Amino acid sequence: MTQLSVPRATISSIISPEGSLEVLSQHEVNRLKSTSKSGLHDLLRRCALAVLNCGSPTDDSLAIMEAYKDFDIEVLQQDRGIRLKLTNAPAEAFVDGRMIRGIREHLSSILRDIVYVYNEIQHHKRFDLTTGEGTTNAVFHILRKAGALKPGRDPSLVVCWGGHSISREEYEYTKDVGYHLGLRDLDICTGCGPGAMKGPMKGANVAHAKQRRKDGRYLGISEPGIIAAEAPNPIVNELVVMPDIEKRLEAFVRLGHGIVVFPGGVGTAEEILYLLGILLHPSNHDIPFPLVFTGPANSAEYFQKIDEFLVYTLGKDIRRYYTIITGDPVAVARKMRDEIDEITDFRRKHQDAFYYNWRLTIARDFQAPFEPTHDAMRGLALHREQPTHELAANLRRAFSGIVAGNVKEPGIRAIEAHGPFELTAEPELMQRLDELLTSFVAQGRMKLDGNAYTPCYVLR
Amino acid sequence: MTQLSVPRATISSIISPEGSLEVLSQHEVNRLKSTSKSGLHDLLRRCALAVLNCGSPTDDSLAIMEAYKDFDIEVLQQDRGIRLKLTNAPAEAFVDGRMIRGIREHLSSILRDIVYVYNEIQHHKRFDLTTGEGTTNAVFHILRKAGALKPGRDPSLVVCWGGHSISREEYEYTKDVGYHLGLRDLDICTGCGPGAMKGPMKGANVAHAKQRRKDGRYLGISEPGIIAAEAPNPIVNELVVMPDIEKRLEAFVRLGHGIVVFPGGVGTAEEILYLLGILLHPSNHDIPFPLVFTGPANSAEYFQKIDEFLVYTLGKDIRRYYTIITGDPVAVARKMRDEIDEITDFRRKHQDAFYYNWRLTIARDFQAPFEPTHDAMRGLALHREQPTHELAANLRRAFSGIVAGNVKEPGIRAIEAHGPFELTAEPELMQRLDELLTSFVAQGRMKLDGNAYTPCYVLR
Amino acid sequence: MTQLSVPRATISSIISPEGSLEVLSQHEVNRLKSTSKSGLHDLLRRCALAVLNCGSPTDDSLAIMEAYKDFDIEVLQQDRGIRLKLTNAPAEAFVDGRMIRGIREHLSSILRDIVYVYNEIQHHKRFDLTTGEGTTNAVFHILRKAGALKPGRDPSLVVCWGGHSISREEYEYTKDVGYHLGLRDLDICTGCGPGAMKGPMKGANVAHAKQRRKDGRYLGISEPGIIAAEAPNPIVNELVVMPDIEKRLEAFVRLGHGIVVFPGGVGTAEEILYLLGILLHPSNHDIPFPLVFTGPANSAEYFQKIDEFLVYTLGKDIRRYYTIITGDPVAVARKMRDEIDEITDFRRKHQDAFYYNWRLTIARDFQAPFEPTHDAMRGLALHREQPTHELAANLRRAFSGIVAGNVKEPGIRAIEAHGPFELTAEPELMQRLDELLTSFVAQGRMKLDGNAYTPCYVLR
Amino acid sequence: MTQLSVPRATISSIISPEGSLEVLSQHEVNRLKSTSKSGLHDLLRRCALAVLNCGSPTDDSLAIMEAYKDFDIEVLQQDRGIRLKLTNAPAEAFVDGRMIRGIREHLSSILRDIVYVYNEIQHHKRFDLTTGEGTTNAVFHILRKAGALKPGRDPSLVVCWGGHSISREEYEYTKDVGYHLGLRDLDICTGCGPGAMKGPMKGANVAHAKQRRKDGRYLGISEPGIIAAEAPNPIVNELVVMPDIEKRLEAFVRLGHGIVVFPGGVGTAEEILYLLGILLHPSNHDIPFPLVFTGPANSAEYFQKIDEFLVYTLGKDIRRYYTIITGDPVAVARKMRDEIDEITDFRRKHQDAFYYNWRLTIARDFQAPFEPTHDAMRGLALHREQPTHELAANLRRAFSGIVAGNVKEPGIRAIEAHGPFELTAEPELMQRLDELLTSFVAQGRMKLDGNAYTPCYVLR
Repeated sequence: MTQLSVPRATISSIISPEGSLEVLSQHEVNRLKSTSKSGLHDLLRRCALAVLNCGSPTDDSLAIMEAYKDFDIEVLQQDRGIRLKLTNAPAEAFVDGRMIRGIREHLSSILRDIVYVYNEIQHHKRFDLTTGEGTTNAVFHILRKAGALKPGRDPSLVVCWGGHSISREEYEYTKDVGYHLGLRDLDICTGCGPGAMKGPMKGANVAHAKQRRKDGRYLGISEPGIIAAEAPNPIVNELVVMPDIEKRLEAFVRLGHGIVVFPGGVGTAEEILYLLGILLHPSNHDIPFPLVFTGPANSAEYFQKIDEFLVYTLGKDIRRYYTIITGDPVAVARKMRDEIDEITDFRRKHQDAFYYNWRLTIARDFQAPFEPTHDAMRGLALHREQPTHELAANLRRAFSGIVAGNVKEPGIRAIEAHGPFELTAEPELMQRLDELLTSFVAQGRMKLDGNAYTPCYVLR
Repeated sequence: MTQLSVPRATISSIISPEGSLEVLSQHEVNRLKSTSKSGLHDLLRRCALAVLNCGSPTDDSLAIMEAYKDFDIEVLQQDRGIRLKLTNAPAEAFVDGRMIRGIREHLSSILRDIVYVYNEIQHHKRFDLTTGEGTTNAVFHILRKAGALKPGRDPSLVVCWGGHSISREEYEYTKDVGYHLGLRDLDICTGCGPGAMKGPMKGANVAHAKQRRKDGRYLGISEPGIIAAEAPNPIVNELVVMPDIEKRLEAFVRLGHGIVVFPGGVGTAEEILYLLGILLHPSNHDIPFPLVFTGPANSAEYFQKIDEFLVYTLGKDIRRYYTIITGDPVAVARKMRDEIDEITDFRRKHQDAFYYNWRLTIARDFQAPFEPTHDAMRGLALHREQPTHELAANLRRAFSGIVAGNVKEPGIRAIEAHGPFELTAEPELMQRLDELLTSFVAQGRMKLDGNAYTPCYVLR
Repeated sequence: MTQLSVPRATISSIISPEGSLEVLSQHEVNRLKSTSKSGLHDLLRRCALAVLNCGSPTDDSLAIMEAYKDFDIEVLQQDRGIRLKLTNAPAEAFVDGRMIRGIREHLSSILRDIVYVYNEIQHHKRFDLTTGEGTTNAVFHILRKAGALKPGRDPSLVVCWGGHSISREEYEYTKDVGYHLGLRDLDICTGCGPGAMKGPMKGANVAHAKQRRKDGRYLGISEPGIIAAEAPNPIVNELVVMPDIEKRLEAFVRLGHGIVVFPGGVGTAEEILYLLGILLHPSNHDIPFPLVFTGPANSAEYFQKIDEFLVYTLGKDIRRYYTIITGDPVAVARKMRDEIDEITDFRRKHQDAFYYNWRLTIARDFQAPFEPTHDAMRGLALHREQPTHELAANLRRAFSGIVAGNVKEPGIRAIEAHGPFELTAEPELMQRLDELLTSFVAQGRMKLDGNAYTPCYVLR
Repeated sequence: MTQLSVPRATISSIISPEGSLEVLSQHEVNRLKSTSKSGLHDLLRRCALAVLNCGSPTDDSLAIMEAYKDFDIEVLQQDRGIRLKLTNAPAEAFVDGRMIRGIREHLSSILRDIVYVYNEIQHHKRFDLTTGEGTTNAVFHILRKAGALKPGRDPSLVVCWGGHSISREEYEYTKDVGYHLGLRDLDICTGCGPGAMKGPMKGANVAHAKQRRKDGRYLGISEPGIIAAEAPNPIVNELVVMPDIEKRLEAFVRLGHGIVVFPGGVGTAEEILYLLGILLHPSNHDIPFPLVFTGPANSAEYFQKIDEFLVYTLGKDIRRYYTIITGDPVAVARKMRDEIDEITDFRRKHQDAFYYNWRLTIARDFQAPFEPTHDAMRGLALHREQPTHELAANLRRAFSGIVAGNVKEPGIRAIEAHGPFELTAEPELMQRLDELLTSFVAQGRMKLDGNAYTPCYVLR
C-alpha cells in the first residue's frame, strides 16, 4: 500500500469510446454529466478508475481511490457520438500517450451498463425486483444490452471461478486449463480480475491464436463494488458490470455452459455455495450442469478440505454435482467439451435457448441482495437444522460478507468503523468454518498484497 | 381489386428471423404469443402480411387482409433464439419454398419495433409523450433500438419523398436521381413503398454496385397504418416501423441529412407542409437543411402548382427553403452532395451528432398525433389569419386525414361508415386547395389501381 | 459514329489501382512502362480505354480509338504500390473528378492479366501451347491468377451468352432471367459487353440485394480484340482478359456450371457451335452440362431457326444437348438450379474440382487460335462429309471470322484493305448459312449502331 | 535424444489445407504426388513433418526423422480443391483427433512454397539466379506468391533475430520486447523456431489482443534445411519457406522495416554479419535501417563481446549501424516505433514501396548460396587484408557452415562422415573467433538439448 500513497504518473486526455457503446440521447448524456445526488457521476468515476488502473497489482480499492484522488472523467457530446474527457488518469492505461484500445472498450462498457442499470432498473423501475421473474428478467436485459447473448453461437462458454490471489504454480495451472479449453474452441468467462480470473483467458488466447479462432470470447462480469479490487485485464473483450453480487452470480450461471472452479478464498467459497445451493433446488434436479473443481496436483488437499466441508454441511449427495480433477488440464478440458456437447443436445431437445439458461430455478434466497451489515452478519442462521439449500444460502451470505469486509469499499469502511463482523454458528459447523477460513488465511488467499491478514470477522 | 378477391397461392413454413432481431426474453415472447386484448398479435399479423405481400401491386390494405384472411403468424421459442411459424403466407415471399432473405429481415424488424414500442412506449410508459422532449426522446430510442443511428458514418442520408402512384416517366426519373446520388456515396431513406419510394433505392443500388459500396443504406421508415399500402421493397435493407405518422415524419427529418421531393399526391403534400412548417419555426432559422423539389422536365408544371400554393399559404419567403430542379438528375445529386458536405461542417463546428438532428425544434403542433376523425377534420382552422407555421400544421393535418381516408384501414372504414370528411377553409384558400387536390386526382396520384378515384373528402 | 468523331470530354488524373492487382516487381513495372516493340504499352492503352469508355453506346473500336487518340496511360511506382497516370481519359469514367471504383478495379484487372499473359505465356513460354494439356493449363493459370477459381464455393456460375445488340424486349427478358437466377443464389458470367451480356447481371444484382447475397459474382471474360466493342459494365465485379477468343471460350466452358443462350448474332452462333462441338466429342459423352436456349415468347422463331440449322449440320441427336424455353424466366432459373445441383453431386461423386471442369475434353481443333485471314476463311471446309464435331469446328471458325470482320480492329482493317471474306460451302449448307446470316442482319443483330449493315463476308 | 528413439503417438487422417493455399492444377498435383527423382515428395514429407512436430522440444532433425520414419503425406485431388492424406503423423498436431488449424495453415504454406519454388525457380528457370537482379526478383516472387507483400499496410514489420536455445530469463525478455512492440502496433517476423524466435510473437500476441489488433502479423521465414530444427510455433500466422539460407536472409532484410537482435549463437552471428556486410556496402550508405541489439541486463556482457568482435573485424565505424540497449524493453520498442516512422517518411519521400526494400544493394557475395563442404569451409579467407564487407561475407559463411554442422541434416551427415570442419584464420582473428565460439558453447547457445556440445568445427 505504501507504494500507492506516493503520487502516480497520470495523463489527461480526451478519448472516443470504442466498441459496444451505442449512441446516447441528450438525456442520457445530461444524466452522466450531472454530479447531482443521483450519484451516477461518482459511480462512473470509480468504475472508470478501476478499468484504467488495470495494470496495477493491488486489490485495495481505497488505496487506489486515494492514489488517484485528482482523477476525473467527464462525458462530452460531439459530432460523431460522445467523447470522454479524462483528467489525471493512470499513465499505465496509455502507450506513448494513446490509450490502449481494450481499455477504451472497457470504458465504453462501463458507461453503457451504468447508464442502462441506472435508467432502466433504478429510474424507470422497468422490472419488479421483488420477484424472481422480475429479477431474472432484469439480468437478461442487462446482458442483452451488453451484447452478451449471442443467439448464433453454439454453447461454448466456460465460467472459471477461483482466487484472485493464488500461487505462481496455481496461476500457471489456470493458464494451462485455459489453453486446453481454448484448443477445443471453448470460450472463457470470469469475474475479470487477476489470478484465476486472468490465467484461463491468457491460456485460451494463445490456443485461439493457434486455432485461428478470431472471435474467441473473454467475457468478464464484474460489479461496481468489486471492480476496483479485481480490475479487468485488457484481454477481456466483453465486459459487463452487473449492479450487485447476486445479479452477477445469476449472470454467471445463466450464461455459462459449464463451470470450472480453481483454488481460491472466500469469494470462491461464496460462488461454490451459491451454485450448489441452486443445483440442490428440487426443480433443478434434472438439469445438467458441468462443474469441475481443479488445480495443480499440489492443490489436492485444498479441494479435499472443500469437499469435506461441503459434505458436512450439505450432505454426501452433494458430490454428484461436481467432479474433482487435479493436475490434469487436458482431462478438465475434455470433460468440459464433452459435457457441453451434451448441454447442446439437451437444450436442442428441450427447445431451450443456447445463450441463456431460463430453465434453471433460482430461489429468492439467492437472488435478494444481501447487505452485509454487522447486524445482518450476526443474524445469519448457520446450523444444519434447515434444508440444505437454505443453509447453502446462509453460508453464501456469510462468505459474501467477508469478501465485502476484505475488498469492497463500503465493507472496508464499516469494518474500520465498527470492528470485525461477528458470525455465530452451531459448534461443529463453527469449528469447520474456522478451519476453512484459517486455511485460506494461511495459504495467503485472502488478499493480494501479501502482508499479514487482519481478519474482518470473528467467529463466536 | 377483383384479382385479390380470389384465393391466392400461399405457403406455410417455419422460419428463423434474420438480421437485426435480437434475442427476446420469455416475457416478450409470451406477449407476442398472446392474442389477448393487448392487440399485439393482430398488429404483428397485419404488419407481417404487409411485408410478405411486397410483390403485390396494390395499395388497398383491406383487400390484402381479405385476400389472405387465413394468414397467421406465431412466435416460437427455440434453441438458438426464436422461430416464426407462418400459415398461409403469400407465396411470392418465397423462392422455391425458401423465404427471400430480405423479407426475413423485414419480419425481424417488424417484430423488433412492435415489441419495443409496445413494451417501452406503451406498456412501461418510458417517455412522456405529452412533451416535445419526451416525444423526441422516444423517436430517438426507437431508432437507436433499430440500429438506425450509426455514429461512425459521415452524413450521407438523403430522404426521398414522393408519390407511390406515379407515371413510368417519373419513376424512371426517380431511379436516375437515385443512381446519381448513389454514385456520390449517398444513401437513400424513403417511406419504403412503391413509386418514388422505390425508384431512388433501385438507382442507388446499381450505383453502389459500380462504386463497390457494400454497406449502402436503403432505409425504409413506415408505420403500422400505412405499411400494408406501401409495403417495403426487399431492397430496403433497414426497416423501421414508427408507431404513428407524426413520429415517422420526425424520424425522417432528424435522421435525414437532406430531402429530395418527387412528384406525389396528398401524402407528399403532407410531408412538404410538415417540413416547411418546422423550418419556419424561428428557432430553426439558422439550421441548414438541403431541400430540393425535382421531377422530369414534364413535371415542371406540377412543381409550379405546388410552389404557387406554398407561396400563397406560407408567404413568398418560403422559397428560400427549397430549390426546384427539373429534368436534371446530375444537378440534383451534385447539389445534395455539396450541401450535405456543408451539413457535415456545420455539425462538426457545432459539435452536433451526425446521426440525429437534435438541434431542430419541432413545435408541439407537429408532434402531437392527429386523429383524423370526421369531427377533427371538420374543425381544422384553414385560413391565413394565423402564423404561417400554424397554418402549415393545419394544412398538414388536412392532408394527413385524406391519406388516411385513402389508404389506411381505420380511415377507409370511417369513410365507409360516415361518408367523406368535410373540410372548411376561407374561400380563396379553399379554391386553391380544391385545385391542388383536383390536379392530384386528375394526374392519378391518389391511388395505385388506376380506377376512377372517389374522393374521401368534400371541401365546403 | 458521327457523334464519336467530335472531341469528347476528358479528364487527366493519377489513380491507385483497386482490388485484385497485386504488387508488381520493378521488372514488371519497367516492362509496362516501356513502349518498346513488346507492344505491351499499346495493348494496355487500348484495353484501358475500352474499360474507361464503358458508358459509351458503341461497338466501333476504331471510332473509339479515334475519338480518344490523345488518351494515354502510364504506370508509376510509388510507396504503397503503383499508380496509374491517365491523360485525357473519358470523362464518363469519373464522378465529380473521382473515378468510379468499379472502373478502377477493371483497370487493375487488365493490368494484371496483360502482365501475366505477357510474362508467363509469351515471354517465359511457361506453357506448351501447341498441346491441349499445355493450353488448358495456361487457361487454368490465367484464371487462377485472376482469382476466378474459388475453391470454397459450391457450383453456382451460370454463363450467359447472347447478342450485344438485342431488342428492348429481349434485353428486359435477359434481366428477368438474371433476376430469377439470382434469387436462387446463382452467379452470372458473361462476355461482359452490353445487351445479353449486361441484362442478366443487372437482374441478378437486384435479386442478390433482396437475398442479401453480398458476395454475388458478376464475372466478365473478355479478350483484347473484343473489349473495345464490348466494354465491361461496371457491375462486373471480376474481370478477366484472356489472350484470344479460343482461350476465352475455353474459360467459359471450364468455369461455368451451366450455360444460358439468349438470342444473338454471329458471336452467339460461334459460341453455340463451340460448345456443341465439344459436347459431341466422344470422351464427353457422359458429362452433364446444363444448356438452355431462351428468349421472350416472340423469340420462339429465332430459336427454331437455330435449331433447324443445328439439326441440319450436326444431326438430330444434337437436340439432346440443349433445351429451348421461351417466355418463362422462372422455368429457366429452376432448370439451371436443379441441374447445377446435379452437377454438384456429379463432381462430388467423381472427386472433381468444383471450380474448374478438368474432365471436359477439348479437341485441338477448338483450342488452336484461328487467325481469320482472307485465305484462312476461304479455305474452311464447310460440308457435311466430315465428322460432326469437325464441321462444328469449321462453322465455329467461320462465325468467328465474321465477328472479327464486324468489330475487332485488325479484322475491320483487313476488310477495309481487301474487301469482304469469301466463304465457300456445299450448296444446301451454303443456302442455310445464308438464311441464318441474313436473318441476323434483318433482325439488327450484327452491329449496335443501327445503321444499315454492310456484310464483311460473301458466300460463294 | 533417447526420448525420441521410442515410438511416438501418431494419428492418420485426411485433412483439408487451410488458408493461403490456392487451387492447384492437375499438373501441380501430379508433380506433388510423384515420388520420382524430382525429390519433391521427400522434401514435402520432411517439411510437413517439421511443421507437425512443432510441439516437440528438440532441434535434432535426424532424430525427428527417425522417430517418425513411418510418417507419410500424400496429396489427393478432391471436389473442392485438394486434400492431404497423412499417415502416422505426430499426435501433438491434433486436438481430440482434429488438427490444430494453425498447423493446417502451415501445411498449406509449405505445399505452396515447395510447389512454387520447384516449378518456377527450378523447373521453369524463370529467374536468372546467377545475377543479383534475378535473385532479388526470385525472392520477390516467392514472397508475393506467399502473400507476404501487403501493399495496403504502413511499415510495421520488426524482424527479431536471436538464439533458439536461450535462458528462461532471456526468453522472458524477448516476450517483453514483443509485448511492447505489439502495444505500438508493430508486427513480428522471425525465423520461426523456439526461443528468441517465439518469445516476441507470444508477447506481441498478448499486446495485440489488448489493442484489439485482429490482423497482427506473426511472419515466420524458414528454409527446408532448418525447418525441422526450428519448427514454426502455431502462433506464426504467415509461414514462408525460402529455398536456402541466402534467400531467407534476403527476405528478412527486404521485408523487415527494422531488426532487433537478441542473444543467440552462431546462427545469430551469421545474421549479424550478413546484415552489417550489406549495410557496409557503399551504395547503402544513406539508407536508414533500424537495428538494435538487446537482452536483459544480465546479457550486457554478451553484447559487449559481440561489439568487440565486430569492431575488431569490421572497424570502429561499424558502431554507427547499431544501438545496444539492455534491460529496457520499452526503450527498444519506442526506438523501433520512432525509427520505423522515419522509414515510412523516407520511403514516401523516395516513392519507395513500403512492402519490399528494393533500394538496398546486396552484393553477389551475400546472395550466392554457400555450400558448406569441408573444402569450402577450409578455403574461407578469414583475415583483415580485405575490404570489410568481404570479410563480413566470409565470416558469415563460416558461421553458416557451423549452423549447418549443428542442426541441418546434410551438415550433420557430413560431419559424421568426415569429422569436424576446419577453419583457418589469421592468428588474432582466430583467437577472437575462438573466444566468441567458446563463449557460445559455454552459455549453452549451440544446441537445445543441453547435453555437452561436441563442436562440429576446429580452428587451426
